[in-house]
Amino acid sequence: MDKQGNYRDFIYQDWILTETQFHPNQLQSRETIFTIGNGYLGTRGSFEEGYMGALPATFIHGVYDEVPVVYTELVNCPDWLPLVVTINGDRFRLDRGEILNYSRQLDVSQGLLTRSVRWRSPQGSTIDLHFERFASIADRHVLGQRCQVTPLDFDGLIEIQASINGYPENPGFNHWEYLEQDKTDRGIWLHRRTRNSRIDIGLAANLTISGAEASLQVYSAPGYPTLSATFMATANQTVTAEKVVTIFTSREVSAPEQAAREKLVVLPNYETLLLEQQQAWAKIWQKSDIIIEGDVTAAFAVRYNLFQLLIAAPLDDDKVSIPAKTLSGFGYHGHIFWDTEIFILPFFIYTQPELARNLLSYRYHTLNGARRKAAHDGYKGAMYAWESADTGDEVTPRWALPNDPYGEDVRIWCRDREIHISADIAYAIWFYWQATGDDEWMRDCGAEIVLDTAIFWGSRVEFNPKYERYEIRGVIGADEYHEFVHNNTFTNRLVQWHLERAIKIYDWLKATFPEKAQELEDKLHLGTKQRSRWQDIIANIWLLQDSATGTIEQYEGFFKLEDIDLNEYEPRTRSMQAILGIEGANKRQVLKQPDVLMLLYLMRQSGESPYDAKTLQVNWDYYAPRTDITYGSSLGPAIHAILASDLGKSAAAYERFMQAAMVDLEDVRGNNNDGIHGASAGGIWQTVIFGFGGIQMTENGPVAHPQLPPNWTRLKFQLHWRGKWHEFDLRSQMEAEEQGAGSRGESFSSVVPESQLHNKVTTAAEIRGVIFDLDGVLTDTAEYHYRAWQRLADEEGIPFNREDNEALRGVSRRESLMLIVKNRPYTESQLQEMMERKNNYYVESIQNITPKDLLPGAIALLEELRQAGIKIAIGSASKNAHTVVEKLGIADQVDAIADGYSVQKPKPAPDLFLFAAHELGLPANQCIVVEDAAAGIEAGLAAGMWTVGLGPVERVGAAHVVLPSLAGITWAELKAKLNNLVTPKQ
Amino acid sequence: MDKQGNYRDFIYQDWILTETQFHPNQLQSRETIFTIGNGYLGTRGSFEEGYMGALPATFIHGVYDEVPVVYTELVNCPDWLPLVVTINGDRFRLDRGEILNYSRQLDVSQGLLTRSVRWRSPQGSTIDLHFERFASIADRHVLGQRCQVTPLDFDGLIEIQASINGYPENPGFNHWEYLEQDKTDRGIWLHRRTRNSRIDIGLAANLTISGAEASLQVYSAPGYPTLSATFMATANQTVTAEKVVTIFTSREVSAPEQAAREKLVVLPNYETLLLEQQQAWAKIWQKSDIIIEGDVTAAFAVRYNLFQLLIAAPLDDDKVSIPAKTLSGFGYHGHIFWDTEIFILPFFIYTQPELARNLLSYRYHTLNGARRKAAHDGYKGAMYAWESADTGDEVTPRWALPNDPYGEDVRIWCRDREIHISADIAYAIWFYWQATGDDEWMRDCGAEIVLDTAIFWGSRVEFNPKYERYEIRGVIGADEYHEFVHNNTFTNRLVQWHLERAIKIYDWLKATFPEKAQELEDKLHLGTKQRSRWQDIIANIWLLQDSATGTIEQYEGFFKLEDIDLNEYEPRTRSMQAILGIEGANKRQVLKQPDVLMLLYLMRQSGESPYDAKTLQVNWDYYAPRTDITYGSSLGPAIHAILASDLGKSAAAYERFMQAAMVDLEDVRGNNNDGIHGASAGGIWQTVIFGFGGIQMTENGPVAHPQLPPNWTRLKFQLHWRGKWHEFDLRSQMEAEEQGAGSRGESFSSVVPESQLHNKVTTAAEIRGVIFDLDGVLTDTAEYHYRAWQRLADEEGIPFNREDNEALRGVSRRESLMLIVKNRPYTESQLQEMMERKNNYYVESIQNITPKDLLPGAIALLEELRQAGIKIAIGSASKNAHTVVEKLGIADQVDAIADGYSVQKPKPAPDLFLFAAHELGLPANQCIVVEDAAAGIEAGLAAGMWTVGLGPVERVGAAHVVLPSLAGITWAELKAKLNNLVTPKQ
Repeated sequence: MDKQGNYRDFIYQDWILTETQFHPNQLQSRETIFTIGNGYLGTRGSFEEGYMGALPATFIHGVYDEVPVVYTELVNCPDWLPLVVTINGDRFRLDRGEILNYSRQLDVSQGLLTRSVRWRSPQGSTIDLHFERFASIADRHVLGQRCQVTPLDFDGLIEIQASINGYPENPGFNHWEYLEQDKTDRGIWLHRRTRNSRIDIGLAANLTISGAEASLQVYSAPGYPTLSATFMATANQTVTAEKVVTIFTSREVSAPEQAAREKLVVLPNYETLLLEQQQAWAKIWQKSDIIIEGDVTAAFAVRYNLFQLLIAAPLDDDKVSIPAKTLSGFGYHGHIFWDTEIFILPFFIYTQPELARNLLSYRYHTLNGARRKAAHDGYKGAMYAWESADTGDEVTPRWALPNDPYGEDVRIWCRDREIHISADIAYAIWFYWQATGDDEWMRDCGAEIVLDTAIFWGSRVEFNPKYERYEIRGVIGADEYHEFVHNNTFTNRLVQWHLERAIKIYDWLKATFPEKAQELEDKLHLGTKQRSRWQDIIANIWLLQDSATGTIEQYEGFFKLEDIDLNEYEPRTRSMQAILGIEGANKRQVLKQPDVLMLLYLMRQSGESPYDAKTLQVNWDYYAPRTDITYGSSLGPAIHAILASDLGKSAAAYERFMQAAMVDLEDVRGNNNDGIHGASAGGIWQTVIFGFGGIQMTENGPVAHPQLPPNWTRLKFQLHWRGKWHEFDLRSQMEAEEQGAGSRGESFSSVVPESQLHNKVTTAAEIRGVIFDLDGVLTDTAEYHYRAWQRLADEEGIPFNREDNEALRGVSRRESLMLIVKNRPYTESQLQEMMERKNNYYVESIQNITPKDLLPGAIALLEELRQAGIKIAIGSASKNAHTVVEKLGIADQVDAIADGYSVQKPKPAPDLFLFAAHELGLPANQCIVVEDAAAGIEAGLAAGMWTVGLGPVERVGAAHVVLPSLAGITWAELKAKLNNLVTPKQ
Repeated sequence: MDKQGNYRDFIYQDWILTETQFHPNQLQSRETIFTIGNGYLGTRGSFEEGYMGALPATFIHGVYDEVPVVYTELVNCPDWLPLVVTINGDRFRLDRGEILNYSRQLDVSQGLLTRSVRWRSPQGSTIDLHFERFASIADRHVLGQRCQVTPLDFDGLIEIQASINGYPENPGFNHWEYLEQDKTDRGIWLHRRTRNSRIDIGLAANLTISGAEASLQVYSAPGYPTLSATFMATANQTVTAEKVVTIFTSREVSAPEQAAREKLVVLPNYETLLLEQQQAWAKIWQKSDIIIEGDVTAAFAVRYNLFQLLIAAPLDDDKVSIPAKTLSGFGYHGHIFWDTEIFILPFFIYTQPELARNLLSYRYHTLNGARRKAAHDGYKGAMYAWESADTGDEVTPRWALPNDPYGEDVRIWCRDREIHISADIAYAIWFYWQATGDDEWMRDCGAEIVLDTAIFWGSRVEFNPKYERYEIRGVIGADEYHEFVHNNTFTNRLVQWHLERAIKIYDWLKATFPEKAQELEDKLHLGTKQRSRWQDIIANIWLLQDSATGTIEQYEGFFKLEDIDLNEYEPRTRSMQAILGIEGANKRQVLKQPDVLMLLYLMRQSGESPYDAKTLQVNWDYYAPRTDITYGSSLGPAIHAILASDLGKSAAAYERFMQAAMVDLEDVRGNNNDGIHGASAGGIWQTVIFGFGGIQMTENGPVAHPQLPPNWTRLKFQLHWRGKWHEFDLRSQMEAEEQGAGSRGESFSSVVPESQLHNKVTTAAEIRGVIFDLDGVLTDTAEYHYRAWQRLADEEGIPFNREDNEALRGVSRRESLMLIVKNRPYTESQLQEMMERKNNYYVESIQNITPKDLLPGAIALLEELRQAGIKIAIGSASKNAHTVVEKLGIADQVDAIADGYSVQKPKPAPDLFLFAAHELGLPANQCIVVEDAAAGIEAGLAAGMWTVGLGPVERVGAAHVVLPSLAGITWAELKAKLNNLVTPKQ
């Protein structure tokens, strides 16, 4: 497997990742990449039909169960994906038969994973298969799956088996015990229970077939309930199977299997569920999106990383948090680290503060676990677990046990020594409070955490009477290559900072909420004595900075370690610890990840000591070359990128940024099969906003000091700060000059109320694409069609005229023919022949089309749109659209063509326009549809797009804007008309 | 759950264990008890229909896979048992509906597990279900399962689903990865592969329905292939489903799933497979059986324990051995301990020497693992693993890790310190060689083991120059309550003994096979220097025995430990280690199991130092009261029983014996859910043979010094010694006197060649039961039947006479009627009425039967048989047999009655006679059937019994012996006739 290399079969568009090949040897890596989720659960991107060596998994927040050595782990839940298609006895699988065409797309604008395959079975039958799936973020207990099959060169028996697999496993482990299942009308359900934690799960599923008469059966093998639909399929006719799954656990309801069954029967159809999904995602992106122009890879990669964080963030649950590998893989067993508070949280604080609050409340609900840990270790107060799960008790394994019976057991010391986590949590709480002004939460939850962890520090520090200073001995700092160190500056300074904030919060609480202050004083045995001790520690804790040079020693004695030149080890593909051994790394000046530099980064936010330009420069120069930034911790690159950006090292900053941004998309470290690197994803946001955007928080809100990477022409985002949204639209120097917008690199920012933010991306100002119907909109092919149908009708002796032809606008070939022949008794083969005949007449005639056949106003509008940077697509039911566009001479103006081959469902289904938008790389609500047919307008609306109707109101009156034709219409005029509307019609 | 108590619902017969109640809360315990197997695999006694909380498991020898902490474990293989019966939509399960009748029987004479249930479904339908299963010991890749259903009060739709469950688990662990499956004609198959060890398994199964027109379907949920048969069942008509499963792994064949499929299609039918099973078991028991009279519980319990060892012994595989929990449970993960060589092996050495050889060859094949262990620990030669699996590498876990995140990790020291295992293996090899004279194996395998482990001892002992002695420091002895001791006498003496034998074997090899000796000298760097060192160690190793008193100190300093009175802790239900803690037990004079006494027991075999009467007495008196014999190790009681017997402590001996014998049958220690206590089972055999039988091996073979428990009237067994079989028939004093057989407790023994032993129990001399047909054999009820049928026929106007009646001999009521009415068009209800009417006539008439109705010779023969100790059963198709026997006045002479209610299948099926034999507690081949009907003779032959036919040759000529009637026939005469035959007819 190409663990290292770029994934060269990937195509990045603004919102869409396209995989163009099937890679049987990279199944697990790509499963991680194509993870979808909804903040309640995450499902890895495993294939519906299942392959050996795959690691299908669905993780639900908070569903933990006991496991040896690592105590507890997030449990792989029953698999809702199995969907097996059998064609004349051949089971569809990509490792048999022949793949004629393959593409898999993740559209992060709507959380939709699709796959289109043209496959020839071992017996030689060719079939198009289209798969879709989503985990509804509009209703997080709902999962949707669709499979469309179109035989191309055969009629035959097709079976679609849709199952729930009740035997999921955490590799090698099985957490599920109790098992019950049964069938319902057209449905199945399953009920299981975890072995030790006794969490019940219930799933229900149904299967709907359209496009064929299917016979439905239920098989009920224990643990593997299956719905089977069997039908006779006909060549070139699409049959659609829609599987809807509901899922609950006993964490939410007392009888989850009952809840799942009851919910299933009241759900709307798949199409509506998908529409709700699209709308919900549009709202999320309104707040969290970042627009980058000039660098499509970065633009997509940033959105991809944010998407992976958004689907892992608990929407309605404040007793869980985001694990290091999100809900996307088995790595770190779903345990929660400082990754969440320090790396991931800022994205949520500034774009989805209610999610940030949930994540921090998890630490409040696990405070008793932190207290148990402190008590067990002989300390006071609350000492947070280095690895935390459901209870907050320490679940870092003590041992890495080898499989080799004579191998050494390796003691893991993080649980004992990596104590900075408690200060990290206080740090996150402080900045959440600063950004949101959420005094209520600080009063009810935050203060107790910060104060009780401060009490822990009071018991943990040691007074060294010889030097009259406080010390913290025997720790692991941020850099985990050094496992037993004293007076790690990162830790000592964070503890000092923590105690400073504890005093501020304590004083604030006494002043503002004296009753709550009293309550906590009683509960935590808090008072002036404790406050004085904190002050004493603040004043006298030892920090190892050389006041003359500004150089900070990572910990006592670090500079005495053997020095190292990492260049001597290049090229390498392993971490320095793997190369040197644990002891070898321990005794050398080599860092797994930033430690002094991490401290500087954390203090940069508030501009506090020891962060200043000189200190940054001197310590960067010392530590950056000694840091294993490529194969050490994945937490490093984003931090280095920000600091390099501060130091004006633009190329280095961009290199580190891309290293972080592609860590999962291109498996930069060769370990993305374990799951998404959540901290890295959070670091990406911080790099873009704090690094390239140069955002700093002032008392008046955020301000930008942008340092855009050279190729970026624009960076646009919004931040939430104390109840208001601040928009930033930053342009590169060149771009700014072209726009005549002022001096070099200047930025534009504006404060907007949230309500306006909500409208923003759905107003005409944000429209970025126009999809034109062809016939009757850009050209008169309607006339050519009419003539071909007329000729056919005449030959058949069927009455037909121009008036009859009106009903054929925007209607597919087969349906047009049916409208003409009405109930005359033609056989299927006769109908086929007539469709072919008509088409031949039409294809014959359109060879004569020229640019002159463009309708008035069309070419002017196309050119104006082109100049305005608006993308253009054709969305036509015609199977000859490519020829027509070519003949009209507008092929160069058109970015994408969606035609009669593109989708299965004709208008008024939204599919064709959604396909066109995908091809343009745009979300639906940034597109306009221009149509002359009622079915087309309906389709545009169903797709969630703006619609412009050409023709009489009685035909296209449902559109947002109705015009007689395109003649004389300008883009400015169209925008003005759309701006008069507040929201798109539903 | 009643962890402690006797299993009061159990009935013990000579060969049969009957469970009379369903115990949903004791599922796992009883699954262990009802384990079946065939030396290739073991299958726990889980119910076909499956229950929550059950632990179904099938273990196959050598199928290990990696697992955390304990390195490797025996893998639970795909479950072949699932068989689900659904009656009018109600799934048969004992925890729903109503149980009207229940019995489950394990017949160890033929390895057959059966269950008969009368069940009323929730909807109120009553049905008889009879389940059977066996793992064929005649063809170990074949598994048979049968289910017979008889609706009692309804006609209705019944579905029988027979599956293979491809999702077996070792609790919490899943070892299976690769998955493939498909269907065949009337069959299914499954192919899986272990995750790390890459062992493939293939299973195939088919399902045959008789007694109804069934429609067969295959469901193929991934991992759960299922055969489903659906049929309309009719009241009082039995439908039989037979499921035959074949199973292979890649340890035997390269393509196991193909092998399973191919084998399945060439197998004979279920009935034949079962017959082969019965015959194969009869042969095994000829060698391994022990007959105990006067104590039916002990008689069965001994056979049960031997059965559990026999089904765990690898028949054709010398690369595996018997795990501590056999193939019956998850305890100890299928690891192999000294339990096998010291406790289990003697049973095989003396009754199945080829199996003993296989077991010892396992140690030869894992010698390189032992060498790796020695090298890793810094020693020379071969140091066997305390826990061993497939490779012989050490797989004792290093840690017991708590689930509590703050709990202490407990270091397990056995892998490092319990080193006596290497001497234990040498001990077993020596006595195998002594008993078998297998020089070839000693030359090829045994010598290398004994010599290379002796080399290990040479590097392991330490010379103490101060005392000029060799010491072995830092060990765990047999008693595991003391974890770090020096100069454990048990270990030191065994090492000395081992080196003594090593020298003998080395000298023998040089003298007998000089080339092999040279080869080993080269390979092991062996020579005079090594031999001298061994002699020096033998002469100077420190043994802590007080020469004056004979008292042996368990190890250096044991007598200085705090003393303890175990009585003070009674009553208790936990081990002393659980009560005192590890440290608490360590510092007290409390033993988990015999240590000094274990040494004495091991030296007793050859009467070597320090074993003598005085030493035994003084050390028994010291150590027995300090040994946690109830809840310490299950290895203890059998050893105490033998030594107590030596000391004439008959009551104590019997108590310890029964404690061991019932450890699984009555879950004496509350842990039989983990699996059979293999070492205890082996200890049982040693207690009976070496303890109660008092067998000692002399150069002229084994001699007996019996000390039978008071209630035992007879103890009979045979031992294989240097190519010959020695039979022992030991009688208690009282019994012997009654038999006029000589002085008190004297025993009879005789040497027989194996060929004779083979015939022995199948010759008339060993016949122990006679099964008489009733009608036409003992009485004239045939005449009464004839009259009743005649009356009915007359009433119906159907021609019928005495000649017609001849065809009715041995034929069931319904079939008799059908023969009379022929193809006359009666309805079912008319037929029912006629059967009832005839029966009423018959029952009316048999009220007049008296002893005078006995046929000539019957009563004399019955009385003679009675006196000869031959058991007597009636095997009659009649439903009135009980009444007839009563009226004939022979109820006191008859031990069992099998009648028209006993089984489903009439003669010529063997069922009725097999049932009768079961009731007598006898294997089939120790029974004679006396019959007057052709169908009866056929049934007797099918049952594998001797047959005596009464009547003309043209009717009963198939029988072994044909007589005109019983008139004047004596038992002696009958035996003589049978003795003229060499083997029973097939």
